[in-house]
Amino acid sequence: MPARAPTYGTYLQIDRLLGAQSPPDYAALLPDDPPDRRTRELLHHDELLFIVVHQAFELWFKLVLHGLSRARDLLGRVSPGERPDVVAEVHVPEISAALGRVNEIFRIAVDQFRVIETMPTLSFLAFREAITPASGFQSVQFRELEILVGAEEPRLAASRGVFAALLTPGEADRIRRRLDETTLKAALLDWLGRTPIERAFPEFGREFVAAFDRYCDDQEAAHSANPYATDEERAAARFRIAGLRAEARAYVLGGDPATRRANQAFLFITTYREEPLLRWPALLLDGLVEFEQGVRAFRFRHARMVERMIGARTGTGGSAGVSYLDQTTGYKIFGNLLEARSFLLERRRLPELTFPEVFRFRFEE
Amino acid sequence: MPARAPTYGTYLQIDRLLGAQSPPDYAALLPDDPPDRRTRELLHHDELLFIVVHQAFELWFKLVLHGLSRARDLLGRVSPGERPDVVAEVHVPEISAALGRVNEIFRIAVDQFRVIETMPTLSFLAFREAITPASGFQSVQFRELEILVGAEEPRLAASRGVFAALLTPGEADRIRRRLDETTLKAALLDWLGRTPIERAFPEFGREFVAAFDRYCDDQEAAHSANPYATDEERAAARFRIAGLRAEARAYVLGGDPATRRANQAFLFITTYREEPLLRWPALLLDGLVEFEQGVRAFRFRHARMVERMIGARTGTGGSAGVSYLDQTTGYKIFGNLLEARSFLLERRRLPELTFPEVFRFRFEE
Amino acid sequence: MPARAPTYGTYLQIDRLLGAQSPPDYAALLPDDPPDRRTRELLHHDELLFIVVHQAFELWFKLVLHGLSRARDLLGRVSPGERPDVVAEVHVPEISAALGRVNEIFRIAVDQFRVIETMPTLSFLAFREAITPASGFQSVQFRELEILVGAEEPRLAASRGVFAALLTPGEADRIRRRLDETTLKAALLDWLGRTPIERAFPEFGREFVAAFDRYCDDQEAAHSANPYATDEERAAARFRIAGLRAEARAYVLGGDPATRRANQAFLFITTYREEPLLRWPALLLDGLVEFEQGVRAFRFRHARMVERMIGARTGTGGSAGVSYLDQTTGYKIFGNLLEARSFLLERRRLPELTFPEVFRFRFEE
Amino acid sequence: MPARAPTYGTYLQIDRLLGAQSPPDYAALLPDDPPDRRTRELLHHDELLFIVVHQAFELWFKLVLHGLSRARDLLGRVSPGERPDVVAEVHVPEISAALGRVNEIFRIAVDQFRVIETMPTLSFLAFREAITPASGFQSVQFRELEILVGAEEPRLAASRGVFAALLTPGEADRIRRRLDETTLKAALLDWLGRTPIERAFPEFGREFVAAFDRYCDDQEAAHSANPYATDEERAAARFRIAGLRAEARAYVLGGDPATRRANQAFLFITTYREEPLLRWPALLLDGLVEFEQGVRAFRFRHARMVERMIGARTGTGGSAGVSYLDQTTGYKIFGNLLEARSFLLERRRLPELTFPEVFRFRFEE
Repeated sequence: MPARAPTYGTYLQIDRLLGAQSPPDYAALLPDDPPDRRTRELLHHDELLFIVVHQAFELWFKLVLHGLSRARDLLGRVSPGERPDVVAEVHVPEISAALGRVNEIFRIAVDQFRVIETMPTLSFLAFREAITPASGFQSVQFRELEILVGAEEPRLAASRGVFAALLTPGEADRIRRRLDETTLKAALLDWLGRTPIERAFPEFGREFVAAFDRYCDDQEAAHSANPYATDEERAAARFRIAGLRAEARAYVLGGDPATRRANQAFLFITTYREEPLLRWPALLLDGLVEFEQGVRAFRFRHARMVERMIGARTGTGGSAGVSYLDQTTGYKIFGNLLEARSFLLERRRLPELTFPEVFRFRFEE
Repeated sequence: MPARAPTYGTYLQIDRLLGAQSPPDYAALLPDDPPDRRTRELLHHDELLFIVVHQAFELWFKLVLHGLSRARDLLGRVSPGERPDVVAEVHVPEISAALGRVNEIFRIAVDQFRVIETMPTLSFLAFREAITPASGFQSVQFRELEILVGAEEPRLAASRGVFAALLTPGEADRIRRRLDETTLKAALLDWLGRTPIERAFPEFGREFVAAFDRYCDDQEAAHSANPYATDEERAAARFRIAGLRAEARAYVLGGDPATRRANQAFLFITTYREEPLLRWPALLLDGLVEFEQGVRAFRFRHARMVERMIGARTGTGGSAGVSYLDQTTGYKIFGNLLEARSFLLERRRLPELTFPEVFRFRFEE
Repeated sequence: MPARAPTYGTYLQIDRLLGAQSPPDYAALLPDDPPDRRTRELLHHDELLFIVVHQAFELWFKLVLHGLSRARDLLGRVSPGERPDVVAEVHVPEISAALGRVNEIFRIAVDQFRVIETMPTLSFLAFREAITPASGFQSVQFRELEILVGAEEPRLAASRGVFAALLTPGEADRIRRRLDETTLKAALLDWLGRTPIERAFPEFGREFVAAFDRYCDDQEAAHSANPYATDEERAAARFRIAGLRAEARAYVLGGDPATRRANQAFLFITTYREEPLLRWPALLLDGLVEFEQGVRAFRFRHARMVERMIGARTGTGGSAGVSYLDQTTGYKIFGNLLEARSFLLERRRLPELTFPEVFRFRFEE
Repeated sequence: MPARAPTYGTYLQIDRLLGAQSPPDYAALLPDDPPDRRTRELLHHDELLFIVVHQAFELWFKLVLHGLSRARDLLGRVSPGERPDVVAEVHVPEISAALGRVNEIFRIAVDQFRVIETMPTLSFLAFREAITPASGFQSVQFRELEILVGAEEPRLAASRGVFAALLTPGEADRIRRRLDETTLKAALLDWLGRTPIERAFPEFGREFVAAFDRYCDDQEAAHSANPYATDEERAAARFRIAGLRAEARAYVLGGDPATRRANQAFLFITTYREEPLLRWPALLLDGLVEFEQGVRAFRFRHARMVERMIGARTGTGGSAGVSYLDQTTGYKIFGNLLEARSFLLERRRLPELTFPEVFRFRFEE
């Protein structure tokens, strides 16, 4: 009774998987047919490539959604025995690991575009019209991913226009549930807000801004003394430094209380990352920075692949094609949070923690 | 009637694809149930990773099989208007492109093992017993790939033992058909055999061996004069050169006529690769060398991943595990053909072609 | 006398290479000291990382300059016995190989930024002020690369402002010579201009535009019939198609004669890439497309690394930092030439070559 | 006075770096000439590739040596205020970061072989004789790396034969100092030995072996019940499981006390990796496993590149070439330590920690 014990093929459902590369013959489908009822021959030997690579992307997206949901859930969890106002230290390494995997997947996914690029444009054109108006823009999982992390623009676009109109009831339901869930961004801001900065450094915000002002003074002096710059270039550098000074103040001391707390925590954790109990939180923030970069790299690489294949023409779904894709590379997931990288200071420019023991281990005696 | 025009989801059969990650509950299956009838919950949050990565491998294998079959078919095709005893020049670039894609896929696939390695051993152990005795050794597509290219050892193992016993009728049929097909290796040897060496260089074999003998003389002199070597090291180098000399002679002048012709053609094309009409054949041979390396790299990387995850324990299917995998990294696909790389000589050591115009273009006047 | 026979260390000049990671102590240098006379200790254990990675980039740039110069030289060469008005077929595979290597190097170089990113911002800040106003903007080799390929913007900037002021006499001389040399772009346009299109297809331009018009008609019809689009989206798609139609006409039939010839040749070679004698030229154009993408990917990745490390602050040399870098990712090397990818048509939409034998082999009888 | 403020060129010593690609003309050197006194022209346009890639490897090796020394030093450091018999927790994240960078470098370095492989064999042969008997085997830094980590075989070979004979006095001195230093392996074993296992789990060794025995019983039962295996295959699986059982016992309870302590600690940390204070040590061990894999991958890739370029011929330095290289891929750095991966058990098979609080945080109240 072979079916009663696991085999590679049944466990991984290889038949189902490898049965999904024959496209529906839309012209022959009857209104009530499921889309895999009547299928057509591949129109070009490269169409298999096109289908398989996109399916591989969707498999990765499923794994990414799984990992990011997990990270989000763990970020929001307060452990039994922990104080609710304190960083949930015991889960932080797991969150880091989940993000680490997602980042590794994006690294693979970005390279995968090279496989598509082994197809010459003329091969793609041989079946492009037959698949119009299908479009990568319609990927439900990628949209879920954008909603889950908390990206603003895609969130807005998810419940209107052609995207929403095309969803099956099941897909619409998934999108609706994603829209209702806590986003990774919200969980992150909430978690950051629980960092007990004040207990370790009561005047952190004020002191940081003062130190940053001194840093800007020094930068101005350095650029004024730059023997290689023209007067014009020196003026431009001074102007940019003045702008940075204002932005830093707004980041640390401005905004609503929740944003301010999160901003300060981002800055605090990154600055004092060598304190034992801040090591994992700092690694987690590194993972988030890498994630935002990974998504942007994916979008950029996607745009380049499309540009290489079909240039600037209109997307199959009717979108503006590559110019639309290039525009999305500017989307920010975590809003201005990561801006803190512009304001970091080396340790010698900052006071030591007032109560460092808050973030140190105490061992059994 | 949305079902009547292509959408991303229906065209790529995303539902079917993303419905294939729930493993069968073997204990609950009835004898006649299809394996996806009753499914179980995932046993660990990392089981999804395990399933998805393996499915991604299988998708790539499908594309690799497609590309290698195409390369094999084109290698064997004699074009209308071409003489049957002449290299089928017009298809060679397409074969190269097909191999180039396969090589790019293996490059991706090798990197993919990193994604699995983000799973700690203990997570894998949490569901490993539940999937015993399923085993990667049972992958039908990978076996097809090995048979198709013409690797000897896997070919022998495909129709006996546990592998054969486990095949469904459909799978057994696919394996049987693969075993009946022309292999890529056979098509390659046949194609090489059609290279019109004699028309361009009637005495190629004899002249090459003579030149290689002179090269070995020079190598012996150089190693004898090596001021940095001990007497023992010099003797060892001399011994190795004598062996190489004998191997080259056997490669070029020995063996059965078909092998000898193919060997000479491999050497000839690589040596005179700058002749216009040998450019594409030389590129094709480069692609084959890279392919053989790619398969070995894949096997090596697979063994390292398994070793990292579970060390030296017995495979889920009962195999010797990593030591079996390490043994397969020594498998040769194209037999001794690629050995020619040991015998190549720089151009100045060889006579020019006697009738170079055989491999040059002639343009319209 | 060990110095008289090659060793790994002397051949590769390892001492010189590994003696170049101690930065000058600018404060202690006397006006006439060579910069490696008085050196300082590294200021942070990560400064070695920073130096080594940049030096590795410069080594790659040297190899890239070598490869691109070679490609440029070969593109411009008319072979003995060839007619000057005909594609210099015999060198094309070598040019492709040179570009292939450059593209492989960029692939490595892009990944190299990950190594820098293992350094936390605070480590970089510990020595950043000490190296102000040194700046990657001052890399002479990268500027040479930009000039050599023919990028417009960097060419203009190379002989003025702080960049020019800082050059040593030797460097200024190298820049001046690069500015005088033929660019890769000019050699490419000239080579394209020599493609004997008219001999194979006298009315190519006119026929192509007619076919593209028919294609646009079909596209308009398809988008108008898209059941998933709103009226607004359909109108936008129509508008974009009308724009594309006009651009295609201008590309193929407009402009000065030299540009027009080159544009048509790009389109012609890519369209009829399956003709035997156009295979290599088509591969060469693929290599150029990949090169332009590679340079853009390098610039994008560079910007992301800088953004990750220091956010949006002013560059050490006084530049606008990441926003300047992001702006350069839009630079086009080959101008509008590669736009042809927007206009390609599948083969069945185009007439066959009028005189196909022009691009076919003729064999010896 | 430009020399008095940093520039990109002087800071990175670009002139020195880019002046190191002209090989010495050994025939023209006088006995006392430094090797860069008289140089020769490159013998082939691809010789620059060969030189640059090897120099890039040496730059990376310098960084790897720096990182591994740092990891070794930190592993051995007992922090002020810490008890000498306790894991030096505060440095562990820094050690992990140092290893993480080294691992990232090896990832790049492995890919770098592709750049060499863009050179056809015949190009290499054009200058191979001129550089005989120089050999990669003579790389002092790679040997230092092997000695530093504690690999046995290379350590033995470092002070004898042709390798030792060729060293300059300065190089011999570096090798001698490396041989005198503590190895990374020794520091690691010592650090592992300080893990306070007994305080958290007094009977860990005995209990672990008992649990492993139960696991082997279950494995035997599973393989005996495997419906897909032949009797022969079942017997082989049983035989292998019996071997594993004996090895596990020897690993955990056998050997000298220091090895036993280190082995147990490796097993303990990996098993209880989710305990808060074992998170970083577990990550450190992951980094070491990845490092050992990275070195093996580098050696394997190196062998493949050499095999592709020149096949099985004798190395330039007189070595056995690729067969020697393939043999080194089996070298183990950390001896049998990493074998523990064969013995890991899922958590439910093991008792919980007797005194878990030893590895938990305690927070300020």
